[in-house]
Amino acid sequence: MSIKLVGFDADDTLWKSEDYYRDAQARFEHIVASYVDLDDVGERMFAIEKRNLALFGYGAKGMTLSMLEAAVAITEARISAADLHRIIELGKGILRHPVALIPGIREAVADIAADFPVVLVTKGDLFHQEAKVRESGLADAFGRIEIVSEKDAKTYARLFREFEVEPREFLMVGNSLRSDIVPVLALGGWGVHMPYHVTWAHEQDAGGVPDPARFREVANASELPAAVRELAGAAQSAFTSPNAR
Amino acid sequence: MSIKLVGFDADDTLWKSEDYYRDAQARFEHIVASYVDLDDVGERMFAIEKRNLALFGYGAKGMTLSMLEAAVAITEARISAADLHRIIELGKGILRHPVALIPGIREAVADIAADFPVVLVTKGDLFHQEAKVRESGLADAFGRIEIVSEKDAKTYARLFREFEVEPREFLMVGNSLRSDIVPVLALGGWGVHMPYHVTWAHEQDAGGVPDPARFREVANASELPAAVRELAGAAQSAFTSPNAR
Repeated sequence: MSIKLVGFDADDTLWKSEDYYRDAQARFEHIVASYVDLDDVGERMFAIEKRNLALFGYGAKGMTLSMLEAAVAITEARISAADLHRIIELGKGILRHPVALIPGIREAVADIAADFPVVLVTKGDLFHQEAKVRESGLADAFGRIEIVSEKDAKTYARLFREFEVEPREFLMVGNSLRSDIVPVLALGGWGVHMPYHVTWAHEQDAGGVPDPARFREVANASELPAAVRELAGAAQSAFTSPNAR
Repeated sequence: MSIKLVGFDADDTLWKSEDYYRDAQARFEHIVASYVDLDDVGERMFAIEKRNLALFGYGAKGMTLSMLEAAVAITEARISAADLHRIIELGKGILRHPVALIPGIREAVADIAADFPVVLVTKGDLFHQEAKVRESGLADAFGRIEIVSEKDAKTYARLFREFEVEPREFLMVGNSLRSDIVPVLALGGWGVHMPYHVTWAHEQDAGGVPDPARFREVANASELPAAVRELAGAAQSAFTSPNAR
């Protein structure tokens, strides 16, 4: 048996996401800069955001609350209510932005789905992710849509049980080594990494890639189907060769 | 065939929830009252919260952002950053509160689970709900845990397909007529309503209960097992009597 199921990440794999967070962060820093002359506003904000992840989880609402908290802390509570309101609006802007598909991804998903069942596995805010899935027009392409709070080995192991696949029968496509590739490879699965032009600092902390033989990197969506089929062929050989003859 | 699956709501059915939101709201109104002398602070906050539901969904993070937005609007941006920071802390307080089980619910779930497969169906913030499920110690009692963004007829119909049950084989236990009882009964299922002593204004807008013969109301958790078994018996009769003899 070769690959039985292909998973796709969503944010920055199917559609643009990090750009909107980056833009909000830049506008946040601009607002705060009218109160303080500091080089490390971004770092201070990230430290607060990272500390709050255990309480807020991922997503735009938690990020917005962290920006508000950071703005009060960094300005020593000198920031005006009007400027804090502008920061709330930055968060709403992230939630409201229209879904912009990654070039070529619709065709790549359709191509891969012709040969393999495909599922969507995304982490973050349930409500926002569901809204983006609906708006993307891609919902029908996926047999299942799983929105999870964290994409680590424990979560993937649970999903494999629910999907009724062995790890070696599963291949994940995504832009984040930390969330999409490393945990799946660690369990014995396969991965195709499609880097996005920007990556959130939190996702850059990936550790090493465990087994380069089980993963490919592609530059854009048009290369995805060939990479998936190449690994599926390798999965087939890996499974059949010990039993050959 | 009788009842094949019993669903339980979580917030204010398994554990206390609305009390913490009420408490945060009261503290919010107290903070705002030092700026304005108005009788309708609560109504104004609810109007903003309700408008934001379409963007934020349910949960403490969205409520906190709505409180912040309302505080700025109601005080015409006169509120201090320090007081807005206190409002952020009110939201964190909701997320941090320890899980307090409803009296008798652990025993009621165990009693019902001895006769029926049970699942948990809750709406709201994925991250916060998962944390509460973990902390409750009740996770192992449930065969499945479904965290959804809205509990309407469409969502229940999707869940019935995933659970592979007919609506008439499903019984839902919960404190909200609007979210737990009315949509399930509308699809042809069964419901046991266990009111909580406080109900969020949004949940009070339930419309009528479609079919009183398919639902019971109980005063506390100790009455749940008997109510579930009574409806299961009625479900059995409803199914078998047309074919009897």
